[in-house]
Amino acid sequence: MRLTSYTDYALRVLLFVAATDEAVTINVISAAYGISKEHLRKVVHKLAQLGYLHTTQGRNGGIRLGIPAENINIRDLVLQFESTELVECFNADTNSCPILGMCGLKGVLQKAQKSFLEVLGQYHLSDLVKNPRLLIFVKNAAA
Amino acid sequence: MRLTSYTDYALRVLLFVAATDEAVTINVISAAYGISKEHLRKVVHKLAQLGYLHTTQGRNGGIRLGIPAENINIRDLVLQFESTELVECFNADTNSCPILGMCGLKGVLQKAQKSFLEVLGQYHLSDLVKNPRLLIFVKNAAA
Repeated sequence: MRLTSYTDYALRVLLFVAATDEAVTINVISAAYGISKEHLRKVVHKLAQLGYLHTTQGRNGGIRLGIPAENINIRDLVLQFESTELVECFNADTNSCPILGMCGLKGVLQKAQKSFLEVLGQYHLSDLVKNPRLLIFVKNAAA
Repeated sequence: MRLTSYTDYALRVLLFVAATDEAVTINVISAAYGISKEHLRKVVHKLAQLGYLHTTQGRNGGIRLGIPAENINIRDLVLQFESTELVECFNADTNSCPILGMCGLKGVLQKAQKSFLEVLGQYHLSDLVKNPRLLIFVKNAAA
């Protein structure tokens, strides 16, 4: 039971950007988190494509939120990055398990996953960046 | 969001064994599911170590449940096979994320994971093997 690093990094990038009003760079985020620029570039690219981030070029350019943090639902965000194929039989196209349709496991796992996602759906990015220490950390990292 | 194949196979083995009163062999389970014997041997070994399976040698030997299916809780079983380290910061010993303790994400993910596991905790192995087609499938596979 693990989210991919890709999802984890997407969440960390958004948390960082949401914790400041300034535009930030990939260099700054990379140094602050100790995550490679290569990985961050891919994540930022996808987040920008999805509209979560807005990036501008130039001297005062950088990365900002493309959507207010209050409107970024954690469930929706995670679903953009994470597969919901909890086990093989969740994907009818690739499933090879012969007891699909006879076994009660799929329904139970689906119910559990729904419950997991429902909890995430109760939160928005703005709920996760309320700790004043986070704001100070980001401010110092961006300085 | 994916359970490991190891967990998936453990569940499939127990479902198979729970669906019959006969002792079954790894060969039979391997042929029925199309899963390699190599993988199944590891899973069966761990399930036997944990007491979920009881294996006997000899002509009429094979694999049976070590615990009644009514007493095998799906949450407990999954937790024996699956890491609960949903993201890096769930493990304080290996965490490298500098915003641990400042960021609200961990608490939200923990709450979601708790909810996922609580749903699994409502079920036992016996609940998942009630479909008569499964019993026929296993009977035919073991014949």
